[in-house]
Amino acid sequence: MVSVAIMGHGVVGSGVAEILLTHKQKLFSGLGEEIYIKKVLDLREFPDSPIADRFTKNFEDIINDLEIRVVVEVMGGLKPAYDFVKRCLKAGKSVVTSNKELVAAHGAELLAIAKEENVNFMFEASVGGGIPIIRPMTQCLVANNVGEVAGILNGTTNFILTKMIEDGMQFEDALKLAQDLGFAERNPAADIEGHDACRKICILASLAYGKHVYPESVHTEGITAITLDDVNLAEAFGYVIKLIGRVKKLSDGRIDIITAPMLVPFKSQLSNIDNEFNGIMVRGDCTGDVVFYGKGAGKLPTASAVVADIVDCCKHMKERRFLFWADGDGRNIIDWRESVSAMFVRVTGADAAAKAEQIFGDINTVSDGDMLAFITCEMTYADFEEKCRTLESAGVRVLSHIRIGDI
Amino acid sequence: MVSVAIMGHGVVGSGVAEILLTHKQKLFSGLGEEIYIKKVLDLREFPDSPIADRFTKNFEDIINDLEIRVVVEVMGGLKPAYDFVKRCLKAGKSVVTSNKELVAAHGAELLAIAKEENVNFMFEASVGGGIPIIRPMTQCLVANNVGEVAGILNGTTNFILTKMIEDGMQFEDALKLAQDLGFAERNPAADIEGHDACRKICILASLAYGKHVYPESVHTEGITAITLDDVNLAEAFGYVIKLIGRVKKLSDGRIDIITAPMLVPFKSQLSNIDNEFNGIMVRGDCTGDVVFYGKGAGKLPTASAVVADIVDCCKHMKERRFLFWADGDGRNIIDWRESVSAMFVRVTGADAAAKAEQIFGDINTVSDGDMLAFITCEMTYADFEEKCRTLESAGVRVLSHIRIGDI
Repeated sequence: MVSVAIMGHGVVGSGVAEILLTHKQKLFSGLGEEIYIKKVLDLREFPDSPIADRFTKNFEDIINDLEIRVVVEVMGGLKPAYDFVKRCLKAGKSVVTSNKELVAAHGAELLAIAKEENVNFMFEASVGGGIPIIRPMTQCLVANNVGEVAGILNGTTNFILTKMIEDGMQFEDALKLAQDLGFAERNPAADIEGHDACRKICILASLAYGKHVYPESVHTEGITAITLDDVNLAEAFGYVIKLIGRVKKLSDGRIDIITAPMLVPFKSQLSNIDNEFNGIMVRGDCTGDVVFYGKGAGKLPTASAVVADIVDCCKHMKERRFLFWADGDGRNIIDWRESVSAMFVRVTGADAAAKAEQIFGDINTVSDGDMLAFITCEMTYADFEEKCRTLESAGVRVLSHIRIGDI
Repeated sequence: MVSVAIMGHGVVGSGVAEILLTHKQKLFSGLGEEIYIKKVLDLREFPDSPIADRFTKNFEDIINDLEIRVVVEVMGGLKPAYDFVKRCLKAGKSVVTSNKELVAAHGAELLAIAKEENVNFMFEASVGGGIPIIRPMTQCLVANNVGEVAGILNGTTNFILTKMIEDGMQFEDALKLAQDLGFAERNPAADIEGHDACRKICILASLAYGKHVYPESVHTEGITAITLDDVNLAEAFGYVIKLIGRVKKLSDGRIDIITAPMLVPFKSQLSNIDNEFNGIMVRGDCTGDVVFYGKGAGKLPTASAVVADIVDCCKHMKERRFLFWADGDGRNIIDWRESVSAMFVRVTGADAAAKAEQIFGDINTVSDGDMLAFITCEMTYADFEEKCRTLESAGVRVLSHIRIGDI
């Protein structure tokens, strides 16, 4: 029997308890041991829970219990999760978390502590919810040099964009629908401004390239400025708009990482990943493109990934799993303005097509009433900004611009 | 340093050697040990190989070398692979294979021997080539009861069907193109008659449900009878035709397994997996649908999966990986004629629509010249056959019928 504690009894935490209780027999037959929930930490009361007698409001009850070998952190946020996790690891307990904010902010430090204490720190659920991604990247693709990772990493924004694309809904209406359906929080900022997706691509980049990438080092744009005009004109060019977290390794060894809306071509495997689903593409030098698809959030999908980590911890009590990256100082990351991309641009103004062609060179254009949309060749963002200034000073107003995702 | 031997220096075997040599540093940094190719078994000569001095034609050189701890079997076929693998396991060596024929025919026995000898028997590359699937199913989805696994498991047939669908090529022309491009063998029977896909779904079914499913227990249909008329009429209903290996768990605990062409709805994630790519959907009770996509064959993708298994073996020298299923007697598999499915039917004859409606009840129809295509409600295959006989005796000729894949 392995005794575990669960810190947090919210959506994911209650899901973890539910799976451990309802799938007890299946887990036992796979592991050869029972996983026993010894303590649940939450400040709230859950008198109707089948394990109501095991709740505690005091973290010390967990840290001081020598029988508890694995601690699940599903509280979210950094306070007090960060301190609690650090203390658990230092006390020789393995920790499993679904907390992407924690891993993105402190992953390198926590992995180093875990290594020192010879315990495991695992976080499959922190990226892609129920989609297997951390383990496939570290184990199945271990023989590959990863050239690029790109993904639709946030279900809320993907749901909103899908409603705009498929049903012609305005952004605000789609956001409200997402909130009504429980796909978006009352305060949706972390999702719609791209911070959640940014944390996830930071975790995947750290894993792929061995150095911690902190969210502050990553240029991040959300989807709040995307309009139906962008959606419709993108479609006219054969693209859908998706919020993409992407990291590429450049030939000089540095990485190019960004979170931003991108135009994804219809033929891309990421283009038809719709609604609240997530999809992640990993480009290996041996495998080529591999794509993982599924529910990126939700109670049971996320809890299922947490439980997989718990099982792995139980199987590797004496031996560490090989999950590690070093701390990073951001010097391996290029300035986002030096990142090269083709651009979709929506403009309005007299003779816009001729002026745009004069400034940007060879472009593809689509007109719609007073508006013109065009796609440029590849250039650095710095170059692009410069050209946009020239275009504006020629009397053409730039209404929006979105990167073309070559994925 | 871990010494390994590679049995077979064909497409996959030479790829394994190539990755171990070219990715030496990356593998070393992940594993903390060097993987050293001590012997390569092949009857042919490879004087230009950088490891030409390590080739042998004699299996005894491998089995008797106590330093060789991991043996890679990439010879293909059953003879002599089966004997060699068994002897290696019994000699206390871990074995990694990409040989789906071997795993589908003898997996249960070889897993039992591996368990007894406390060594590993791993076969990530046997299904889906470079796509991670065995490990995600056994580890990441461990907390799930798997309701269904369905996949496009054969790249050759998927390439042929894609050419028929997208370019309107005839089956024979598409097959010839696949052969010219190296996607199909000179004798393409194992692919186009569905046996290769069948072996792979057998492996996934054995893994998902814990009992060996032998290919002989699985009804298998290939794609040789698919015509452009089928392709075009399927499209008119909103479907594409794909060769699908599928296993479902029924409520009585038995499984329904089949390999056959199916109509896959446009909205399915499997519908736009094209050309030589593979895709596998796993339906977990916690995760919902998870889909894995990538190159299902080819030298480096497949070799990359083999190398991942080698690394895992090296990391788990003293400890077995938890990969296991028991032998099966087929009694947990329903008769394929009892399997329930809606059907796409293509017919010709006077008053075909009226007669079909009278016999099959509520149907959707599409006409094309003399032909009529219709889709039935769900019924057992036995019922369907019976109704087809009635339809034929009413003077309507059934030209083709294909299952509707609810995936």
